[in-house]
Amino acid sequence: MHPWISQRANSFDSSGIRRVFDLAAKLKDPINLSIGQPDFDVPDEVKQAAIEAIETGKNAYSPTQGIGPLREAMRSKVLADYPTHTDRDVFISSGTSGGLLLSMLAMVNPGDEVIFLDPFFVMYPALVQMCGGVPVPVDSYPDFRLNVAKIEAAITEKTKVILVNSPANPTGVTATADEMKAVAQLAADRGIALVSDEIYRHFFYDDQFVSPAQFNDQTIVIDGFSKSHAMTGWRVGFVHGPSELMNAMLKLQQYSFVCAPQPAQWGALRALEVSLSGHLADYQRKRDLVYDGLSDVYEVVKPGGAFYLFPKAPIASGAAFVEKAISRGLLIIPGNIFSHRDSHFRISFAAPDETLHQGIELLRTLATE
Amino acid sequence: MHPWISQRANSFDSSGIRRVFDLAAKLKDPINLSIGQPDFDVPDEVKQAAIEAIETGKNAYSPTQGIGPLREAMRSKVLADYPTHTDRDVFISSGTSGGLLLSMLAMVNPGDEVIFLDPFFVMYPALVQMCGGVPVPVDSYPDFRLNVAKIEAAITEKTKVILVNSPANPTGVTATADEMKAVAQLAADRGIALVSDEIYRHFFYDDQFVSPAQFNDQTIVIDGFSKSHAMTGWRVGFVHGPSELMNAMLKLQQYSFVCAPQPAQWGALRALEVSLSGHLADYQRKRDLVYDGLSDVYEVVKPGGAFYLFPKAPIASGAAFVEKAISRGLLIIPGNIFSHRDSHFRISFAAPDETLHQGIELLRTLATE
Repeated sequence: MHPWISQRANSFDSSGIRRVFDLAAKLKDPINLSIGQPDFDVPDEVKQAAIEAIETGKNAYSPTQGIGPLREAMRSKVLADYPTHTDRDVFISSGTSGGLLLSMLAMVNPGDEVIFLDPFFVMYPALVQMCGGVPVPVDSYPDFRLNVAKIEAAITEKTKVILVNSPANPTGVTATADEMKAVAQLAADRGIALVSDEIYRHFFYDDQFVSPAQFNDQTIVIDGFSKSHAMTGWRVGFVHGPSELMNAMLKLQQYSFVCAPQPAQWGALRALEVSLSGHLADYQRKRDLVYDGLSDVYEVVKPGGAFYLFPKAPIASGAAFVEKAISRGLLIIPGNIFSHRDSHFRISFAAPDETLHQGIELLRTLATE
Repeated sequence: MHPWISQRANSFDSSGIRRVFDLAAKLKDPINLSIGQPDFDVPDEVKQAAIEAIETGKNAYSPTQGIGPLREAMRSKVLADYPTHTDRDVFISSGTSGGLLLSMLAMVNPGDEVIFLDPFFVMYPALVQMCGGVPVPVDSYPDFRLNVAKIEAAITEKTKVILVNSPANPTGVTATADEMKAVAQLAADRGIALVSDEIYRHFFYDDQFVSPAQFNDQTIVIDGFSKSHAMTGWRVGFVHGPSELMNAMLKLQQYSFVCAPQPAQWGALRALEVSLSGHLADYQRKRDLVYDGLSDVYEVVKPGGAFYLFPKAPIASGAAFVEKAISRGLLIIPGNIFSHRDSHFRISFAAPDETLHQGIELLRTLATE
């Protein structure tokens, strides 16, 4: 180990997803069900707005909190959703990841504990460890539901944050209003900060999206345009929550991200007017296609949102199963990247139908081999 | 203080520059000599390359380390500059600020000390404190030179990093080859990491730019396109240094910035082919204009680079002088934002000539009032 490298940088590994991609780079024309972003492109109107920004010289730093029109539009939307949250403020972040990092930097002291469900988005443990905090994953197998009793059992004197994610990556599971309300009230009762990662909010198929902010006015909500408008490479997100916390996060943004990319912010402003219903109906259909194609031969929870399924592998090790699948040309992600268990694997259905059909066929073969 | 806010977020203030800008927002048509970015726009070819990227669907995440063509182009440039540095690797960061933050996160443990000259770029103390480190500013008044004896005297057992910045913000002072070599060798002799912030490298007027990497092959260089190509709002920078450290920084990038905005990276690739000589000759002329217009009535070091002058205020307090200037419609920045002393102020000459003439005239009046 290099003597200059910090404990924080040594406290976690490089993402296993990257290792899978390195493995996959050797594949010619894989059946790719590994992608964590939409398979459609940025809507044309949104592209045009960003292009106009570039052409008209909107290329310099924006204010730390984001360009005025986008921040004001987001503020109006947020206040319409939460009219009684008089202290709720909004700012524009560099993607959802930027918002997540700032929220942890703004709240987590060394030794503080952050609770989230296992399986979890790969970034969560690393984000907590980058701040010297202690990740507390709560096992949610086999149904992956947001179980308030399990969350409550994980609370200690060191618990600083509960981090929820519905719809969830990698399981696609969505929380019901009752589940979310119970966790929101638990956080409020215990004086614990509640962070809600709502990046998959628009990808919600069977019911109505529920934010914990509806039940807990101190909730810090992290959201963005990356998944809904296929702008993952544009790095624009937004954060809303209690004003004092937003100010602390903005102070940290000033010395780190500085601002979200300005032309992309003008694109995001236009994105607010773009209907996603066509894409969403299509993704619901893809969800059904893959779930119906696999649920008789795999143990799998039907995802209510996002664009992932998280089936149980037919052999003991999810990682071994994924290696086998990759050797047959199918790219999926081993569950142990998102979990302390190595029993499942992640399928993304953000892919063309032909790819989905090929993937289903091969997975059906692999299930009984 | 909100009970959820971390010690790190409470350990430093919001940038004073922002307070000046808030004050200035009330001014109608100020003579604005406060801007820390070029007064020209992104070159057309560079805009066109970013627009083409957007139009052709290059809108998703790029690899963590940057798009292949840009990273390879930077690697060729860096290897041409440092042919004997066989272990030197390169990656694309989200601006120079992104590179600076990652370098601190990758190296600074709680309690570690980071040495830099005072006056300093506003971000330096905050970046160190965000990582739990201790900023060690070394007083460089009145000549603002990189004095190896002063740096050496500040070294303790806790010194982890020496951070140099030539040309410097806010003084515009450039280090000579002898000065840089002495500091580079000092760092090597003591086994201290050396970080070189080279964002103003292209704005070098009287001599040849010298990087400490020429004398110390372990130097971590942080650079970007923001200032040279007026792309401050595009958030693209690059970092090069020992491969093990670059890997540590990339691991941290994966869980924070994710990647630099993809369309902006394609713009940066084109920027490598755009000549800046016209703009640079113009900025040298502006430097002479402002220096010659003020040096007989202000105590001021002639800046060899960047686009700043850092004169001594004619009254005891730089902050009080700036308030007076602002009340007369001239926007400049108080030196105490960049320093533990409150005796100077910063002028940016990245402004149209007419603004410079108005500023000089008013400053000449204020000098003798």
